[in-house]
Amino acid sequence: MKNPKIPEATVVRLSIYSRYLTRLEQQGVPTVSSGEIAQAVGVSAAQVRKDLAYFGEFGTRGVGYGVKTLNAQILKILGLSTPWSVVVVGVGNLGSALASYRGFARRGFLIRALFDRDPAKVGRILNGLPVYGLERLPEVVRQVGASIGVICVPADQAQPVADLLVAAGIRGILNFAPQYISVPEPVLVRNVDLSVHLEVLSFGLVRRAEGERPGLAAAGNRPEE
Amino acid sequence: MKNPKIPEATVVRLSIYSRYLTRLEQQGVPTVSSGEIAQAVGVSAAQVRKDLAYFGEFGTRGVGYGVKTLNAQILKILGLSTPWSVVVVGVGNLGSALASYRGFARRGFLIRALFDRDPAKVGRILNGLPVYGLERLPEVVRQVGASIGVICVPADQAQPVADLLVAAGIRGILNFAPQYISVPEPVLVRNVDLSVHLEVLSFGLVRRAEGERPGLAAAGNRPEE
Repeated sequence: MKNPKIPEATVVRLSIYSRYLTRLEQQGVPTVSSGEIAQAVGVSAAQVRKDLAYFGEFGTRGVGYGVKTLNAQILKILGLSTPWSVVVVGVGNLGSALASYRGFARRGFLIRALFDRDPAKVGRILNGLPVYGLERLPEVVRQVGASIGVICVPADQAQPVADLLVAAGIRGILNFAPQYISVPEPVLVRNVDLSVHLEVLSFGLVRRAEGERPGLAAAGNRPEE
Repeated sequence: MKNPKIPEATVVRLSIYSRYLTRLEQQGVPTVSSGEIAQAVGVSAAQVRKDLAYFGEFGTRGVGYGVKTLNAQILKILGLSTPWSVVVVGVGNLGSALASYRGFARRGFLIRALFDRDPAKVGRILNGLPVYGLERLPEVVRQVGASIGVICVPADQAQPVADLLVAAGIRGILNFAPQYISVPEPVLVRNVDLSVHLEVLSFGLVRRAEGERPGLAAAGNRPEE
């Protein structure tokens, strides 16, 4: 990679470009221009070229990008060349929803086990996946070779669950609990707060109502960023 | 507002600053510096100042920001001074999870009604909210004064549901269906793909495994962006 300092927004856009390229691949489209990618996902062509330039030279001037090659490169950059084993802790409504969220497997994130501290839930099968008690976590995480843990427990349990995941060897945590968690280096955490998405909408709605031109292109009909 | 062209990343960060300020307010903390905000949410102090500068002058040099005033200003910018009425369409796992997601109400997004096309679900009460059939949507949306609709239906139903919401007068749509939807101006759409969050994690994990310095600060222990 040319430049180690990649803006997170670029990573998010790569992920979105790749979804579009996967669609083109399925349709048998051989090549695509930065302008076509840009239009499909709602950014400028210059942005597409800039994002890709972080990782080297991809296209051929006047010909565009080979769909298959470009997508393979992006998937490699995103760490999606091989699948990831994932465990989900907490199978309330959100955890259950994630356990059956098909989008994860489609991008190579395979949920391999579920955990809950509620004895009434332990032993159940959700979407083909067993629910284990938390005391089984270290053993099962190793067994399934999980690197990523998803936290869907109430706020007050988030930190102890994170500690448990880290001790079991988990390297990345996606945290849906409304609570910041701290983990030792080099474990990575990404906190997801679903209401942020609604706030980007309300920001855009208020600005439109105020009669201002929609300066925030991204709040318009754009993929998540 | 000084500048109509606000980067979406700024809006997302404002939303995150505001969560921290709300916490400080609850603790009775009177003032805060950009450095303290920066440290709490994991960005640079310069970034905090730059984000706020889009909207005018807030702080006093050497004193910092008044917590209460700054938070009120940010909430106003985000369109959160008054609550929003929200409806959710599709009460499968994800829709049910969102119906009981407490984070929404805490930020002023009040879910007022749920809809599903499955007759077996219509008439149920979820988390105190009635589930209506889709045919009641236009009437109920008007009744509850909803401006925002959340789509949690399967991919093939996303566009017809979006059309129904727009016809009923909905102005902003949060789309969790794995399907791009098109809406007429000036309706706003925000597509949420939960696997993007996992991909930002896997990107960071692969780079760390490659022994590179973690150039992507945001993939580290940072709030969602």
